[in-house]
Amino acid sequence: MKLGRLNHIGVVTPSIVESVAHYRETMGATATTEPFDLPAQGVKVCFVDTPDAHGEVGKGTQIELIEPLGEDSPIHKFLEKNPLGGQHHVCFEVEDIAEARSWFEGQGKRILGPTRTGAHGTPIFFLHPKDMMGQLTEIMETPRGDGH
Amino acid sequence: MKLGRLNHIGVVTPSIVESVAHYRETMGATATTEPFDLPAQGVKVCFVDTPDAHGEVGKGTQIELIEPLGEDSPIHKFLEKNPLGGQHHVCFEVEDIAEARSWFEGQGKRILGPTRTGAHGTPIFFLHPKDMMGQLTEIMETPRGDGH
Repeated sequence: MKLGRLNHIGVVTPSIVESVAHYRETMGATATTEPFDLPAQGVKVCFVDTPDAHGEVGKGTQIELIEPLGEDSPIHKFLEKNPLGGQHHVCFEVEDIAEARSWFEGQGKRILGPTRTGAHGTPIFFLHPKDMMGQLTEIMETPRGDGH
Repeated sequence: MKLGRLNHIGVVTPSIVESVAHYRETMGATATTEPFDLPAQGVKVCFVDTPDAHGEVGKGTQIELIEPLGEDSPIHKFLEKNPLGGQHHVCFEVEDIAEARSWFEGQGKRILGPTRTGAHGTPIFFLHPKDMMGQLTEIMETPRGDGH
């Protein structure tokens, strides 16, 4: 397997509205997406675009803001420990999700649940932080030119 | 202020050697720098290069691996809480470090210590996670074309 792009880092927040204000007003972000619900994962998410090395906004690694959705959201536990929020996961792109899944399985890494559709509309899965040097790691198939 | 590139994410590890092996052998990284000591900060660091949206390795957001250096390293406390290591900070680029420092001071954000030279040889400072939605945030001046 070849290390892909760091598509985004996932950051938990008690309030997407407050986080978006923080990124826009304090950090100077110019592009943030509308928040949307991912009920299957018990979260509401929104993305902050950053520039790449050429200054092109939207081509850099994104910040995924994650707020709990519903009472059973897995994010509540994170916020109990970190009431202000904080870094939650990293997400790397791969060319082929099935190939990547086999690769990590072959390495004896624990995969958390089935491959499913992620926030960018492409298939994703998560790897157990205890098998990934302490980092909850999302693997996602690279979105194609049409945004998927 | 305008949001700059996400230069790197800082990841604490109990062993840079093990982390480099993880990123090269499991994640498929092809480019990692030689580890070097930053005695003033009590850490040893090394960078993992990732590709950008065009597939160019070294142009994407880097992973900074951080291992404690010396008995007084501020990283020991992090490893006590997270023995496997984990995400530690985010680092955004700015055009002008002095201007950025004034900006954050004007916003009432706590800056941790003086502006100093960071791992890329350019001036940096850190912002208190409690003022930054739970994220320890490094601000660094963009390296110029000569690598500085």
